[in-house]
Amino acid sequence: MMDPLVIFTPSGKRGRVPAGTPVLTAARQLGVDLDSVCGGRGICSKCQVNPSYGEFSKHGVTVKPDALSDWNAVEERYDRVRGLKEGRRLGCQAQILSDVVIDVPPESQVHKQVVRKAAAVRDITMDPATRLYLVEVTEPDMHEPSGDLERLKRALADQWQIGTEGLTVPLPVLSKLQPALRKGGWQVTVALHRGHADAGERILDLWPGFWDGRLYGLAIDLGSTTIAAHLCDLRNGEVIASAGVMNPQIRFGEDLMSRVSYAMMNADGAAEMTRAVRDAINRLVTEIAAEGSIEPSQIMECVLVCNPVMHHLLVGLDPVELGQAPFALATSDSLSLDAAELDLSGLNPAARVYLLPCIAGHVGADAAAVALAEEPWASEDLVLIVDVGTNAEIQLGDKRRVLACSSPTGPAFEGAQISSGQRAAPGAIERVEIDPVTKEPRFRIIGCDLWSDEDGFAAQTAASGITGICGSGIIEAVAEMRMAGVLDARGLIGSAAQTGTDRCIAEGRTHAYVLHDGRTDGGPLISVTQSDIRAIQLAKSALYAGARLLMDELDTDTVDRVVLAGAFGAHISPKHAMVLGMIPDCALDRVTSAGNAAGTGARIALCNRAARAEIERRVHRIHKVETAIEPRFQEHFVAANAIPHATDPFPHLSGVAPLPDVSFNTGGGEDGGRRRRRRG
Amino acid sequence: MMDPLVIFTPSGKRGRVPAGTPVLTAARQLGVDLDSVCGGRGICSKCQVNPSYGEFSKHGVTVKPDALSDWNAVEERYDRVRGLKEGRRLGCQAQILSDVVIDVPPESQVHKQVVRKAAAVRDITMDPATRLYLVEVTEPDMHEPSGDLERLKRALADQWQIGTEGLTVPLPVLSKLQPALRKGGWQVTVALHRGHADAGERILDLWPGFWDGRLYGLAIDLGSTTIAAHLCDLRNGEVIASAGVMNPQIRFGEDLMSRVSYAMMNADGAAEMTRAVRDAINRLVTEIAAEGSIEPSQIMECVLVCNPVMHHLLVGLDPVELGQAPFALATSDSLSLDAAELDLSGLNPAARVYLLPCIAGHVGADAAAVALAEEPWASEDLVLIVDVGTNAEIQLGDKRRVLACSSPTGPAFEGAQISSGQRAAPGAIERVEIDPVTKEPRFRIIGCDLWSDEDGFAAQTAASGITGICGSGIIEAVAEMRMAGVLDARGLIGSAAQTGTDRCIAEGRTHAYVLHDGRTDGGPLISVTQSDIRAIQLAKSALYAGARLLMDELDTDTVDRVVLAGAFGAHISPKHAMVLGMIPDCALDRVTSAGNAAGTGARIALCNRAARAEIERRVHRIHKVETAIEPRFQEHFVAANAIPHATDPFPHLSGVAPLPDVSFNTGGGEDGGRRRRRRG
Repeated sequence: MMDPLVIFTPSGKRGRVPAGTPVLTAARQLGVDLDSVCGGRGICSKCQVNPSYGEFSKHGVTVKPDALSDWNAVEERYDRVRGLKEGRRLGCQAQILSDVVIDVPPESQVHKQVVRKAAAVRDITMDPATRLYLVEVTEPDMHEPSGDLERLKRALADQWQIGTEGLTVPLPVLSKLQPALRKGGWQVTVALHRGHADAGERILDLWPGFWDGRLYGLAIDLGSTTIAAHLCDLRNGEVIASAGVMNPQIRFGEDLMSRVSYAMMNADGAAEMTRAVRDAINRLVTEIAAEGSIEPSQIMECVLVCNPVMHHLLVGLDPVELGQAPFALATSDSLSLDAAELDLSGLNPAARVYLLPCIAGHVGADAAAVALAEEPWASEDLVLIVDVGTNAEIQLGDKRRVLACSSPTGPAFEGAQISSGQRAAPGAIERVEIDPVTKEPRFRIIGCDLWSDEDGFAAQTAASGITGICGSGIIEAVAEMRMAGVLDARGLIGSAAQTGTDRCIAEGRTHAYVLHDGRTDGGPLISVTQSDIRAIQLAKSALYAGARLLMDELDTDTVDRVVLAGAFGAHISPKHAMVLGMIPDCALDRVTSAGNAAGTGARIALCNRAARAEIERRVHRIHKVETAIEPRFQEHFVAANAIPHATDPFPHLSGVAPLPDVSFNTGGGEDGGRRRRRRG
Repeated sequence: MMDPLVIFTPSGKRGRVPAGTPVLTAARQLGVDLDSVCGGRGICSKCQVNPSYGEFSKHGVTVKPDALSDWNAVEERYDRVRGLKEGRRLGCQAQILSDVVIDVPPESQVHKQVVRKAAAVRDITMDPATRLYLVEVTEPDMHEPSGDLERLKRALADQWQIGTEGLTVPLPVLSKLQPALRKGGWQVTVALHRGHADAGERILDLWPGFWDGRLYGLAIDLGSTTIAAHLCDLRNGEVIASAGVMNPQIRFGEDLMSRVSYAMMNADGAAEMTRAVRDAINRLVTEIAAEGSIEPSQIMECVLVCNPVMHHLLVGLDPVELGQAPFALATSDSLSLDAAELDLSGLNPAARVYLLPCIAGHVGADAAAVALAEEPWASEDLVLIVDVGTNAEIQLGDKRRVLACSSPTGPAFEGAQISSGQRAAPGAIERVEIDPVTKEPRFRIIGCDLWSDEDGFAAQTAASGITGICGSGIIEAVAEMRMAGVLDARGLIGSAAQTGTDRCIAEGRTHAYVLHDGRTDGGPLISVTQSDIRAIQLAKSALYAGARLLMDELDTDTVDRVVLAGAFGAHISPKHAMVLGMIPDCALDRVTSAGNAAGTGARIALCNRAARAEIERRVHRIHKVETAIEPRFQEHFVAANAIPHATDPFPHLSGVAPLPDVSFNTGGGEDGGRRRRRRG
């Protein structure tokens, strides 16, 4: 008689196994993804499966009701104590007696897909560096003496096929081993970290017997301005809490270069900034653990992405070399560290920290994380990826070649250096529309879903007030002003006379456009001034020039698609970005937002060891273009000053949003004014 | 024409190289041991050689005066600035032009022999884990960007053929890299640690340019009672300072078991003892560095040997399991740690600490170190190695098999638990002779070379006084008492009447033998009491029984030779040890002292990486015999109570020191007295 046939769904993997083979064993032999923490002892219940009975013409089998062995004592006890869902069996206990179809539910799969990407180029499956293993250790024998740790290693090798040649155990964890083994009746659950490269295994923590707890990981996007963290369940990748804090280094300088200067001018400056950022991360850890209702000691892994200056300051390296050409990094490879090395006392004391590799110069681990999330190297068409923050990281490429550069946009896009600018918070104007005929604006603020001209807006916003303009608001405002004809291509705001609206008010020799006058209610006058426009022009010119430089390098004038990344990128309207000339012209429906792609990349590296190895390999093939010393960058920068651009055609844009051909140069704009003065 | 022939002495290696080849290059090609830290840049002068000229019939060559190239600018500058010895050349600069004989002086050999052993089975050559390398790093290039560390790694691989795949750099060291490279003109000297097993390389420290400093290592023998350290120059193995301190754990218990009890009875007990011993080591480091006139930060390596209880307490592991069968160690493998993990803040912050593997149970890393020094596995004849301390570690074996056990002798051999006992210090009686006719003693004390009956003794010892008996003194005293017939084979001291000397005084129902009565001068009465004899009997019986158990296991009644190890072993006279029956009978000239063999083993592991690998391999093949649960141990113990032994013949001994056949049993000794009481 032939051995029974077993068919696993959803994988479709099938094969014959001797009658009496446990389902878990069959799954392993056939390479089916079926979880187990206890290694088949009927304790952890991670191997639960759903057998199916009856006719399966699709598979060509009939499954008899007794295809699996009856419930045994272990299953009965488990069901009694903790309950098994209807129809479920423990894969390690149920034996295959005749042909059977067995479904592995998602929660029993180790390598579940968790980070599913829009582009669907590749789904990320769970394969975190740290996992739990229940191990049964031989008792000590005076006549065959060996250390408890040595017997644990042998058990890991025997029971889990884990090579333990280079396995290490931090002393505080080792000190828990002997009591744990005795308390757990010679069973112990270990949190085992497996490095993705040559790095050996390490036991990060251990518990007596079977520990039914969970391990967590932190994915941290350490930005110049904000630090954002996601707390992930390392079993299924689920984000169970998210939190953010301001980067306290802001007090040493808003942008990166001013922090580098601070380090150069103050003997203890770099160390001071290092302490500040580590303290902030520790506070963030406390906060996010409380929000997720977990013990901070359950956090065993942390992945950090950041730009090179933040990278060096976090790690304790003086960033001074990043202040000048040739922008040499102290180290650009990925770093695998102990949390203690970074004074991250909030995590488990043995937690491992992984920093993605930097690409080069000012193109850092954050850009690497964006690349890991967006995979430009897998793109069939030419994709431009723009990560907009205080610095913009720009990547351009496709299957053949990927380029990257960094461009110092400054913080204007984040609402800083803008007269009415503010961080994104309730009360901040985030959306703007200006009627091209009446030139009247309407807007929305954060914390209210209504437009300002809709009923109930005043009531709903009474609490927060209308306090300023955030980053996405200023972009929309400027773009709408341009579309409505109160701003010309050179970036001059027209006077009331030129534009025909009292919203344009004089401010010295220039003009400002009033979005909202709250002064009668004790609130602020919120306007876009000529110097705001200049700040936005500088920022967007830097961004565009960076992209253009990469396009030059690939000898192209167009890109097939544009991905806007960065927390802020998620809120930019593609049309407005293009009206401003932030990004090259492109079909509007080919401009997408990737949300916080750097954070996504960090999560991918947290959940999947292979992703770490991949990005370490890939960064060496991403060609960095240096903007700082490239004369053409200056040329592109100057040409990009106009809105949208002095010379580059924007054919797709003009189809969607034809821009009025106005010019306020002669009417008293600042340039005209100056020119007149000089002439006079 | 044939290429020039070069012959290196003392190695005798020879070969032909193209004319113009530098001597250093030729040495490398021919596998000649010629040092270089700067890699041939004419900076470090470690590659100095002595060329020889003239006729060498032995080698069959004639060396012409112009066999080497003339001095070049580099050699001239070096000689001007720092001076080259007469006849010396820099191997990296001098080029071979015709046949030549070149002597490599000892100081230019990397792998010098340093620990030369009496047995000469194997000489230990220098190959320490940490060495200095001068590296020339490529400058950063904005167009081929890479991190400074990555370029350093490449340079190490290119210039020193060092695989840097797994190379790590602690963050504080990494933070020094960028300034050092720039200050050193893109040259940097690194202290590179290379693990002996799979462990990757690690940069422990670095300096700008060529650093002409020295690295040091500490070999520490951490005993229950004393901690002894040797500070070694890692270039040549030279011991430049030695120091010792008392183990402060003594206040928690004199012997190991009382410390284990302290850990069991007190919640924080183990941690308290861990802190105490680490503090003591830190003090020792400060002291020894001062004595050696070096910076503690130059200490990059530390090798520690100790018994398992000390091992666990040092490492921070609760030794409770060592208090009971099956005496399971938490870990028995060797440990490679950061100094910081042991709070050894005195060393270089990145220093590496190596603990030799334990053998099993109470046979620890100190026994492993003794084995490394004495190599019983290489012995042609059957050798018994006895390391006498508060615990005795005993090894027995030869080429075929090696056994080991631990025996709890207690601290009597160290002068503790002895009525007039004291630690070895000035004023302590260390040598004793008793005239067999007059029964009068004479003695020597530590700090004076004269015997007590020699002229000038009183004057020379006035300062220290005569204060007590140290460990070797008590052994000699008891053995001499036995030989002089004031002590019988059962261990009873005779009365004045029985022995015919007033030196035997009554003490309650027993007697004591007066070695020295200093009471008239305000000093102590120094005597050997009946209970002192009992303490020595217990200790020596434990020692002998352990040895006998191992002999049983090998089915032998004799051993070919005996090695006495331990700082104390160096002071024991073989004859007296044998009279006492501490060791099995053996030809007296086959009883040798190995001095502090554990300390020697530690030094070997410090100087030679291969020795670490060897002992790790060997310990698995040393068979541990457990004394604690073996009924025959008790039998041997009881039989060994007599002096020298109740039943075992001591043929060699009786040839050298025939013992008087006295018995004081009936005369009122404690046993007789008790028996009478019972009868009454």
